[in-house]
Amino acid sequence: MKNVIVIGAGKSTPSLIDYLKDHAQPCDWHVTVADCDLAAAEARVAGHDRCSAIRLNVENEVRVAEVVKGADLVVSMVPAHMHGPVAEAATHHRTHMVSASYVSPDIRALQEAAEHNGVTLLSEMGVDPGIDHMSAMDKLDELRADNAKIKAFETFTGGLVAPESDDNPWSYKFTWNPRNVVIAGQGGVKFKLNNRYKYVPYHKLFTRYEPLSVPGWGDFEGYPNRDSLRYRRHYDLFGIDTIYRGTMRRPGFCRAWDCLVQLGLTDDSFVIDNLQDMTYRDFVNSFLWYDKDMSVELKVRAMLKLDLNSPSFDRLEWLGLFEKRPIGLDRGTPAQVLQKLLEDKWALAPDDRDMIVMLHKFTYEKGGKIWQTQSYMVTLGEDQQRTAMAKTVGLPAAIAAKLVLTGEITRRGVIIPTVADVYDPVLAELRDHGICFEEQTAEIESNGRSV
Amino acid sequence: MKNVIVIGAGKSTPSLIDYLKDHAQPCDWHVTVADCDLAAAEARVAGHDRCSAIRLNVENEVRVAEVVKGADLVVSMVPAHMHGPVAEAATHHRTHMVSASYVSPDIRALQEAAEHNGVTLLSEMGVDPGIDHMSAMDKLDELRADNAKIKAFETFTGGLVAPESDDNPWSYKFTWNPRNVVIAGQGGVKFKLNNRYKYVPYHKLFTRYEPLSVPGWGDFEGYPNRDSLRYRRHYDLFGIDTIYRGTMRRPGFCRAWDCLVQLGLTDDSFVIDNLQDMTYRDFVNSFLWYDKDMSVELKVRAMLKLDLNSPSFDRLEWLGLFEKRPIGLDRGTPAQVLQKLLEDKWALAPDDRDMIVMLHKFTYEKGGKIWQTQSYMVTLGEDQQRTAMAKTVGLPAAIAAKLVLTGEITRRGVIIPTVADVYDPVLAELRDHGICFEEQTAEIESNGRSV
Repeated sequence: MKNVIVIGAGKSTPSLIDYLKDHAQPCDWHVTVADCDLAAAEARVAGHDRCSAIRLNVENEVRVAEVVKGADLVVSMVPAHMHGPVAEAATHHRTHMVSASYVSPDIRALQEAAEHNGVTLLSEMGVDPGIDHMSAMDKLDELRADNAKIKAFETFTGGLVAPESDDNPWSYKFTWNPRNVVIAGQGGVKFKLNNRYKYVPYHKLFTRYEPLSVPGWGDFEGYPNRDSLRYRRHYDLFGIDTIYRGTMRRPGFCRAWDCLVQLGLTDDSFVIDNLQDMTYRDFVNSFLWYDKDMSVELKVRAMLKLDLNSPSFDRLEWLGLFEKRPIGLDRGTPAQVLQKLLEDKWALAPDDRDMIVMLHKFTYEKGGKIWQTQSYMVTLGEDQQRTAMAKTVGLPAAIAAKLVLTGEITRRGVIIPTVADVYDPVLAELRDHGICFEEQTAEIESNGRSV
Repeated sequence: MKNVIVIGAGKSTPSLIDYLKDHAQPCDWHVTVADCDLAAAEARVAGHDRCSAIRLNVENEVRVAEVVKGADLVVSMVPAHMHGPVAEAATHHRTHMVSASYVSPDIRALQEAAEHNGVTLLSEMGVDPGIDHMSAMDKLDELRADNAKIKAFETFTGGLVAPESDDNPWSYKFTWNPRNVVIAGQGGVKFKLNNRYKYVPYHKLFTRYEPLSVPGWGDFEGYPNRDSLRYRRHYDLFGIDTIYRGTMRRPGFCRAWDCLVQLGLTDDSFVIDNLQDMTYRDFVNSFLWYDKDMSVELKVRAMLKLDLNSPSFDRLEWLGLFEKRPIGLDRGTPAQVLQKLLEDKWALAPDDRDMIVMLHKFTYEKGGKIWQTQSYMVTLGEDQQRTAMAKTVGLPAAIAAKLVLTGEITRRGVIIPTVADVYDPVLAELRDHGICFEEQTAEIESNGRSV
C-alpha cells in the first residue's frame, strides 16, 4: 500500500481529495490529509476508510519533514511561500511532490538533488499555472509537428461567476484571493506585440483591454498580465512576434476598475493613519481636490469625465463609495480600504456558482496562408465545495499524483507540465471530468481580421 | 584652540568650509576636512594655514570614531544614511555634531545619551530641511505671540536655475540629485486642505499643481510634496485647517512632466531587459499601443490629447524622446532610461548659475479679519563652487557650528532648528550673507482671494 499525503485542506482541495479517495481502493493507497486546523482536515476525510486526518503546522519544518518522510508522494497545497521546505524534505526523503504553485527559486535549486535521488518535483499543476501550460503546449506541439510557423500566441484566463449568478453591475464576485484582485497589475506589465516590446504603466493598464468572445458564453474583455515575455522560454517561442497573457473579465469591468485606479483607491504604497473617523464618502473625497460647492459625486464625474448616464459611474455608486458609512478600520492603505468594501459587495452568496474561463489564440502560417485557432475551456462550479476553482486547481494535481505513483510519469527532477508525457495523460483524464477544450480555426488576413 | 572636523567635501560644502576657514583665526579653530577622496578635501582646504585635509572612508566606523574623538565639533556632510555612525561616535566622545540631513531613527535613538553626555546633535540644518524650518517658525512664533489664530500654512521650495541661465523650454536644469527629481512624488502624497485630509495618487500628482508668484522673480507653480502632515508636529500646528508643502517649478513644467508620467517613463518598478537595441524613439513606442500606420509622435499626441501647438509636446520633442538615437544602456527601469536622457539635456553649463526659491504663505485670523502673509527668499549661485545650493545648505550648518562652539547655542540632545534660541541667531547671520526673507501682508476673504 502506498501513502499519499496532502498538506493543506483549504478551498482548493475538495476535488483533489475526493479524487484521491476515489482512487484509494483501486490504486491501493492510504491518503492522509494534514492541516493546522484538524477539523478542516477531518471534514475533507469525511470518514473514508482509506483516509485519515492529522494536525500539522507547516511552519514546523521538523514535523513537516517527519510527515513527508513516511509518504510515497506529497501533494503540497500550502500557501505559495511555504512550498520550499516541503520540497526540500521531499527531495531528502525520496518522496515525490506535486504542487499547483509556481516553481520558486528554492524549488529550482533542488533540481540536481531531486534528479540524483530519483524524485519528481512537479509544480505548476493547477489551473493557472497548470491547465494553461498543458493546453497551450498540446496545441503548440501539434502545430509545430504540422510545420506551421507560429506567429502569435495570446492566452486569457478568468475566475468569474456562472451566468445565473451574474447579478451585479460588475459581473464579478470574489472567487479567489481578494487582495490579488485589488492590487492586480501593479509592478510592471510586459508583452510583445507584432514584434514590438510593449510596457504598460499601471495607471493605463485598465484602458488597454481588448474585446474577446467565447462561443456559447458571450462577450468578455482581457487586460494584460504582468510579464508575458518569460513564457517564451516555457513554450519555446523565442522567435514569436506576439506573446500576450491576459486576465478575463466581463464587458465594462475594466473601464469601471480604471475609475478606481484613477481615483487612487487601489494604491498600496502608503498608509492612511486616520481612518477611524472616515466614511467611505470621506475616503473618496480625500483623493479629490477641495471645492466647497461641488459634491463628491460631481467631483468624481468631473475628474473621470463621466457622463450622467455612464455605466462606470453606476458601478461606482453600486459599490457604496458615496455612502456616509463608517469604514471601520483604524489605518490602512487605500487598497486595503477598497478591499474591505469589495469583500462585502462582491461576496459569493451560498448558492452562487463560480466559473473558470480560459481562451487561447494561436496565429500561424501554413500553406502560404495565415490561420488563427481559438481554443477555449469553460468550467462551472457544482456547489460551495466543488467550485470551478477547486476542480481546475485540484484535479490536475490529483491526476498527476496518480500518474507519478503508477509509474506513468517517469520524469524526475524539477518539472512543470509543458512536456507531452505529462500533459497528454493529464489532459485526457481531465476530459473525462468534463474539463475540456473546444476549438475553432479560421483563415485570417495578416492584420488579424478574419477573411 | 578648538578642533572642527568636516566629514565630506562634496558639492554642498564649499560655502560651509569657506565660512569655517574665515572664522578660524578670530575663533581660534583648526578645521580638518575629511573625505575618501583626499584631493577633493585638499581642494577645499586650498592651503589655508588653520585648515588641513585627511583621507577618511566613512564606511570605516573605527576610523570615523577616532577622527570624531579628537574634535570639539563635527559637521557631518556624508550621504544621508551614513550620519548614524558619526552621531554615535560624537555622542560617545562628547563631540557636538551638526548636519544638514533629516533626523534618522538611529539619531533619534541617541537622544538620552546625548543629553546625558552634554552633547548637541543638531540636524536638519541646511536649506530644506533647515532654512524652511527656521523661517517658518520665526514667523509662526511671531504670529502666535501676536494672538493671531493660524488657519493655513503652505510652503514651497525649488532648486532652479537663475533667470539668465533659464534657456530651455522646461526652465529647468539639474542642480541636485537627478534621481530624486525623476522619481519625485512616488510613494504617497498627503496634506490637509480646508480641514480635509487629501491624498494624491502619483499619476495625478503633476496635474494638482497651483500657480504661484514671487514679487520680482515672476511666476512659478507648486506641486505637493510627500507627507505634509508630519510638519504639524514640528511646528506645533495640530489644529490647523491647511498644511501643505510643495516643490516649485517654472510654469509649464508640471503639465509637461505629467506627460512623462502618463507615458510611464518615470516608472521605477520594473526593469526592461532588452535596451541594447533600442533607441529613445523605440523606448517611447514601447509604452504605446501598436498601430502599423501611426507615427510615435501621433500616438503620443492621441494618448495625451495634445494639440498641434501644445507647449508640452514641444518640451517632449526638445528632450529628444522621438530621436532614433541609441539609449546606450543594457538594462534599466524606465526611470533610469529617462534619467540618462535628462542628464544630457538638463546639464548645467559651466557658466550657468543656480537659484533657490522659498515661499511661505501664512493665513491667520486677527482682529476679526483674515490676513495672509507671503514670505519669500531667493538666493542665486555665484559660480560653479558657490552655488545657491552650496550656500543655502552649507551656511546654516556653518553658522550653527560656530554658535555651538562659542556657547551661544546651549541646547543639548537631538535638536532641529525650530526653536528660537537656534533660529534667531542663525537667521540673523544668514541675512548678513544675503540670505533673507521679504514679506507682504494683505487682508483676504475667507475663500483665499485678496480683498
